[in-house]
Amino acid sequence: MGIIITAFERSPDGGKGLARDTRVRWALEEVEQPYKVRFVSFQAMKEPAHLAVHPFGQIPTYEEGELTLFETGAIVLHIATRFGGLLPDVEHARARAITWMFAALNTIEPPILDLTTARIHEGDKPWRDERLPLVADRVRARLTQLSPRLADAEWLDGAFSAGDLMMVSVLLRLRASGILDEYPGLADYVARGEARPAYQRAFAAQLAVNRAQAVAG
Amino acid sequence: MGIIITAFERSPDGGKGLARDTRVRWALEEVEQPYKVRFVSFQAMKEPAHLAVHPFGQIPTYEEGELTLFETGAIVLHIATRFGGLLPDVEHARARAITWMFAALNTIEPPILDLTTARIHEGDKPWRDERLPLVADRVRARLTQLSPRLADAEWLDGAFSAGDLMMVSVLLRLRASGILDEYPGLADYVARGEARPAYQRAFAAQLAVNRAQAVAG
Repeated sequence: MGIIITAFERSPDGGKGLARDTRVRWALEEVEQPYKVRFVSFQAMKEPAHLAVHPFGQIPTYEEGELTLFETGAIVLHIATRFGGLLPDVEHARARAITWMFAALNTIEPPILDLTTARIHEGDKPWRDERLPLVADRVRARLTQLSPRLADAEWLDGAFSAGDLMMVSVLLRLRASGILDEYPGLADYVARGEARPAYQRAFAAQLAVNRAQAVAG
Repeated sequence: MGIIITAFERSPDGGKGLARDTRVRWALEEVEQPYKVRFVSFQAMKEPAHLAVHPFGQIPTYEEGELTLFETGAIVLHIATRFGGLLPDVEHARARAITWMFAALNTIEPPILDLTTARIHEGDKPWRDERLPLVADRVRARLTQLSPRLADAEWLDGAFSAGDLMMVSVLLRLRASGILDEYPGLADYVARGEARPAYQRAFAAQLAVNRAQAVAG
């Protein structure tokens, strides 16, 4: 019973690994499960066939036999629950690792996404330049709280977990802004995540698709 | 081994149930587990003792013996995993219910929180009136996608689950804006959630605290 995920036919970032299928690919690589990818165009994402799988018309989705899931967080948690290697076996440590998944997605990522909205989607608005620093400071406020929690540790809570996978993936979005480099401890943490062989394989796989598309286009 | 959660000493909404401890109280009432509440002032939330429990200086937190958790989503998922009644036993249905938890927190709630930011936190900015409709339309775009998925069903995927608990809690935030009433099916769904005895007990408990504080203040 094979695993099939969906990804952008052509990723908006051109293959820098910021599209959310990279997170699911990374999780599958960590637990050493093979998978296939179905590519979806922007037009197809909004059509009934894809909306039946993903009500919000996005990627990634996850199919495994009769099970169909959407939401990157839910998919990564399912992978981590179904296969070994991404969550501790001990109940308390497991709950704490899952807490970091939620912290990445609900506390750290929202202001980071707001930064993209402010810069790109509201890039033509008269308030852009005055508003951007406000939004950037909301990101900094979160990183200032996260940074001491990690301190000199390699990962957030003991061994590498799905919580680190998600936190590194979220922080990666910040690199282009320069804000990540203001927090050397967090920048090192992200680099440790990227250095994992499973991340390297996931990144290379999504880059190969986007390079092929760029040539074809 | 008792359960202790934290809540605002004085909730910013004065007891309308929008503070996130209501979600945790609701989950604990659904699974019929008693709990105690430790109240935290805005000042104490930013002090080392609380930051040791919650690195981002917020409420709620969850303590049960030696286990300490933060992040509402993680707490509700832990409660749903540890005690019966909020997640299906069947693996696939369980993964789908958890997917709706993530959808509520990661897809539906962010634009709703942005609406509060735009109206309140940026309420004194020159762009407020021009920007608010943009943000409101992002909320509508999500509800327009969610609404047909629920259609005439009572809950999002079979029996009431932690996914519904979270989705109803998130949508509740919209009531004051009037946007929820533009989607009668979703408004009815929220009303069904609020009508559950466990929600009623959770709401009453947090309201009682805020009423007592208002009198004391």
